[in-house]
Amino acid sequence: MKTQHPRQATASEDSLMRIFTVPEAADSTLSIIEQKLSADLAGFLGESIAALEKPLAEIETDFQAFDIPSAPRFVSDYTDEIMHSLVAHSVHTAAPSFIGHMTSALPYFVLPLSKMMIGLNQNLVKIETSKAFTPLERQVLGMMHHLIYARDGDFYQSWMHSANHSLGAFCSGGTIANITALWIARNQVLKADGDFKGIAREGLLRGLRHYGFEDLAILVSERGHYSLGKAADLLGLGRDNIISIATGPDNKVDVEQMRATALALAAKKVKVMAIIGVAGTTETGNVDPLPELAALAAELGCHFHVDAAWGGASLLSNKYRHLLAGIELADSVTIDAHKQMYVPMGAGMVIFKDPEFAHAIAHHAEYILRRGSKDLGSQTLEGSRPGMAMLVHACLQIIGREGYEILINNSLEKARYFADKISQQADFELVTAPELCLLTYRYVPAQVQRAMTQACAAGDIARLAQFNELLDGLTKFIQKHQREQGKSFVSRTRIQPARYFRQHTVVFRVVLANPLTSREILDAVLVEQTQIAALDKEFLPKLMALL
Amino acid sequence: MKTQHPRQATASEDSLMRIFTVPEAADSTLSIIEQKLSADLAGFLGESIAALEKPLAEIETDFQAFDIPSAPRFVSDYTDEIMHSLVAHSVHTAAPSFIGHMTSALPYFVLPLSKMMIGLNQNLVKIETSKAFTPLERQVLGMMHHLIYARDGDFYQSWMHSANHSLGAFCSGGTIANITALWIARNQVLKADGDFKGIAREGLLRGLRHYGFEDLAILVSERGHYSLGKAADLLGLGRDNIISIATGPDNKVDVEQMRATALALAAKKVKVMAIIGVAGTTETGNVDPLPELAALAAELGCHFHVDAAWGGASLLSNKYRHLLAGIELADSVTIDAHKQMYVPMGAGMVIFKDPEFAHAIAHHAEYILRRGSKDLGSQTLEGSRPGMAMLVHACLQIIGREGYEILINNSLEKARYFADKISQQADFELVTAPELCLLTYRYVPAQVQRAMTQACAAGDIARLAQFNELLDGLTKFIQKHQREQGKSFVSRTRIQPARYFRQHTVVFRVVLANPLTSREILDAVLVEQTQIAALDKEFLPKLMALL
Repeated sequence: MKTQHPRQATASEDSLMRIFTVPEAADSTLSIIEQKLSADLAGFLGESIAALEKPLAEIETDFQAFDIPSAPRFVSDYTDEIMHSLVAHSVHTAAPSFIGHMTSALPYFVLPLSKMMIGLNQNLVKIETSKAFTPLERQVLGMMHHLIYARDGDFYQSWMHSANHSLGAFCSGGTIANITALWIARNQVLKADGDFKGIAREGLLRGLRHYGFEDLAILVSERGHYSLGKAADLLGLGRDNIISIATGPDNKVDVEQMRATALALAAKKVKVMAIIGVAGTTETGNVDPLPELAALAAELGCHFHVDAAWGGASLLSNKYRHLLAGIELADSVTIDAHKQMYVPMGAGMVIFKDPEFAHAIAHHAEYILRRGSKDLGSQTLEGSRPGMAMLVHACLQIIGREGYEILINNSLEKARYFADKISQQADFELVTAPELCLLTYRYVPAQVQRAMTQACAAGDIARLAQFNELLDGLTKFIQKHQREQGKSFVSRTRIQPARYFRQHTVVFRVVLANPLTSREILDAVLVEQTQIAALDKEFLPKLMALL
Repeated sequence: MKTQHPRQATASEDSLMRIFTVPEAADSTLSIIEQKLSADLAGFLGESIAALEKPLAEIETDFQAFDIPSAPRFVSDYTDEIMHSLVAHSVHTAAPSFIGHMTSALPYFVLPLSKMMIGLNQNLVKIETSKAFTPLERQVLGMMHHLIYARDGDFYQSWMHSANHSLGAFCSGGTIANITALWIARNQVLKADGDFKGIAREGLLRGLRHYGFEDLAILVSERGHYSLGKAADLLGLGRDNIISIATGPDNKVDVEQMRATALALAAKKVKVMAIIGVAGTTETGNVDPLPELAALAAELGCHFHVDAAWGGASLLSNKYRHLLAGIELADSVTIDAHKQMYVPMGAGMVIFKDPEFAHAIAHHAEYILRRGSKDLGSQTLEGSRPGMAMLVHACLQIIGREGYEILINNSLEKARYFADKISQQADFELVTAPELCLLTYRYVPAQVQRAMTQACAAGDIARLAQFNELLDGLTKFIQKHQREQGKSFVSRTRIQPARYFRQHTVVFRVVLANPLTSREILDAVLVEQTQIAALDKEFLPKLMALL
C-alpha cells in the first residue's frame, strides 16, 4: 500500500531545515507507528511482520535501485514503503514461539531509553564526546568484572575509573570481544624485551624471531565459535594455527588431548599463546571444564580466555552460576549483553582480570586520545562507538540480580522441561541435553530409533549412516516447512554425536531464553513438527526400503 | 532529585514478566521524557543537558558502585536518576553552537525509525536473523558504491545481491572499516600460491617467507588517522610499518616523497602492501592528491585505499564532489554515515571497487554461515550486528541527492564564510583554510601577528617558538573556558604549519556540518573567544616580556 503522495520535485532549503527542526506530526504515518510500538511492542511486531515467508529473491526486488534517489521523499511515504518491503519481511526474533535464535524478547523500557541514547548521539571514543557516558561504561565493565571475579571494594576503587587502566572493553559484539582478547594476548607474548620494541611496534615476524618461536598457536575445542578463526586470520597467525581439540561425548573439550597437543607444539617451537574455554558452545550450549583449562594455561604459561558470549549471563543466577565454575580463573572473558541479558543487538563486552592487561594495545593520538585522559578509545579495537553501555546499565539496575536470577533460572528449567518432554515422546530423540538453556533434538520415528539402536549395538556404521542421512533430510524438511509456516521457529545445526560414532547429524537447535515462551508453546512445537513430518512424502518410502 | 519510591524488596516473577509485556504507562516518567524527545528533540537536549560543565571526578561519584544491584528498581526511579547523573552530563553534540565535533544535529525522523530498528532487533550476521534487512544493507552498499564508482546497471544487477560477492562491508565505524580494507589488502598480497595456502590459512610469517619479503609496509600521510596504526598492530605488521609521509604546506601528502620511500623500501625487500589517501584529514580537513596516489599505487602494484570516513559524504554534492576527484580510482573507500550523512553513531562503511575483493577474508562456518548463502557475516570483520543500515537507507531516501546537495554545499560555504570572517579580524589568525567544511584558527592579537611576521621574515625560529608557546597556552585557555561556559564549543588540535617552520601549534578546530549553525552563531563564537582571551591574566605580562 504505497501512498500516492506526489514526490517533492526539488528540495528547498526551508523544507530541508524542517527535518532537523520540526518533529513528525502526531498524526503522521511514522508517529502513528511509533505510538503503536510504544503501546504494544509485541502487537506491533506480530501485526507488522508477515507470518508467511516470502522468498528472498522476491524480497530483493524491492532493493534493486542502486542510484541514490535525486528528489527527497516524504517521511510518511518512506515509512509506508518500508513497513511493507522491510519490516514485514524481517524476522520476529521476539516471538515466544521463535526459539531458534540467541536473541529474544526485549523489556519495554529499552525502547524509549534507546531512543534517548540515539538522540543524545554520544561517541564513546573519548570523554570530549561522551562525558558521563564514559564513567557509566566504566561502571558497567566494573559490574561485569565483579560478577566474574568478585574482587573487593579497594580493587574497584583503584581501577574502575583509572585513566590508564581498564577492566574490559565494550564492543559491538562477541566477535570484536574475542578478537580484542586475543590481540592483547598475542601482544603480551611478543612484548617489548631488550632491543625488541614489541610486536605492536615491530610486527609479528620480528617478534617471532626475537623470541625464537617458529609460530604462535591458539588451542580451542572443535566447538569453538567461528570468530576465533577470523581472529587468527586477522592477527596474522593464520587459521591453521587455531588448533581444534576434540570434544568428549558431553561436547566438552578433551583437556588431556589439549595438553598433549600443546606439548607437541612446544617441541616444534610453536608457542601456544592462548587456550580458550567455551562457556556455552554455540551449537550445543555446553561448558568446557574451565578449572582444568585454567590449570593447563598456568602449566603452559599462556593466556586463558573464556568465550562466554552466550553463556556468560548465567553468572547472574546464584543458583546456576556453579555451571560456569572456573570462569574466575580466566585472564579474559567475552560476554554479549545482547544475548541472554535482554539488551538490544550491539552490546558485546570483553572483561579483563588484570586492569593492566590492555596496556599491550594502548594507543594514543596526539591531541585526540590524549595520554593520561580517561578516553576509552585508547584501549579498544573500535574507534567511534555509540552509548550502548547505557542499555546494559539500565537492564542491570532495573532487572537487578534478583530479576536476572528468576529469568535465567526459568530459562534453564524450561530447557530441562523441554528436554524431558522430548525424551518422553516416542518419535523424538533428544540429541544433546541442556547444560544451560540450549538443547538439540530431532524427529525420529520410534521404529527408526529401535533399528538404529540395533545398528549401534552391532557396530554397523554403514547402516547407521543410511539412517542418519535419511533423518538429515527429514530434519531439514521439517525445519524449513516450520519456518515457512511462520507459527514457530527452531534453528538447525549439524553435530557429531558420540553415540553415532561421530557421524554428522543434522539436529533442531533451540535456545530457551525468551521469558514469554510457555510450556504450552513448547508442547505445541512438537505437535507441529510431528504434523510436518507426515508431509514429507519422500521419507516413508525411503525408510521402508531401509527397514 | 532522586525520588523516594520504596525499592521493591524482591523480584517476583509476575512483576518481571510485566517489563516484557506491559509498556510504560503514558504518564510514567520515561513516557513523559519520550514524548518530550519526540515533540522537541532540540528543546529536550537543550533543557536536559546541563549548560555548565561539572568536573569529571564529580560525575564519577555517581558511577562508583561495582556490585550489580540485588533488587530490581522501578523504571521511573532509574529514569529520574540517569536524567541527573548521565543525561545532564552528556555532550550536546547537536547544539548549533557546538562546532567542534564531527557529529551534529540529527533529522527528527531517525529517532522513531531507530526505535523501530531496535524493537525489531535483527542481527545482520545472517539472513536467518535479518531477512529483508540483508538485501536492504546490500542496497545501501550498492548505492554508496555507485556514488563513488558510478558503474552501470548491469554491474549492480550482477553483484549487488550476489551471494558470493560484496560491494562493501557495513561496520560499527570508520576504524573497523579501515581495518577491514587493510586486512583484505594484506591477504591479497600474501594470497595462496603454489604450495602456500595463503596468509589466511598459514599466517604472516609463512606468507612473507613464501613471497620472499622482509616485511610489509603501508604508506600514508603524517595526517593519517590513528586507526591506521591500530590496524598495523592488529594485522601483525607493527606500527613502525605504517610509514608516515610528510605533507606540504597545504597538508596534502607529498607524493614524490611517498614514491621515494616506496622505492627505498622495495630495495630492502619490504613490500608496500597498500598506500592510503586521506580524503578529509581529521585535523585539517584536507584531501590528498588522489589521482597521483592512484598512479603511484598502480606503479607499485599495491592496494590503494582512501580513508574518506569524514570527507566522503561530500561526494553527495554535485557542485563540490570534484574536491574528491580520483576517489573512484581507489580499490577501497571508508565512509562513515554517522559523520556528515546525519545518521546516528554506529554507521561506518567500507566500499570495494571489485565485488570479489572480500574473497580474501571470506569465512564460512558449517551450518551457521552456509557457503553460497547471502549471509553478510561471511565477509565482515564483525559478527552479530544491528540493522543500522536501515537508518542510512532512510536518510538517502528521505533527504535524497538534492537534499544532501544543499546540506553539503551549505556546510562548505559556511566554512568559507567563517574563514573569511576570521581573516578579517585583526586579532585572529586563520591557520588552515577550509577545503571541505573543516578549518583551524587561533586567537592572535594583531601586535603578536606583526611581531611573528617579522620573526618569520628574519628566520628567527627561536623567537617564533617563544610566541607559539605563549599562544598555545592562550589557545588552550580559551578553548577550555569556552567549553566550561557551555554556550559554544570548538575542539582543539595541534598541527605543524609550514609558515611556522613546522613548529607545533595548538589551534581551534571547527567542523561546520550542523545545518542549524547560522552565520550569527559563528560571529558570536569569535566575540566570545575575544572576551575569554581577556580573562587570561598570565598572557599579557608574558607577552609584554617578549615584545
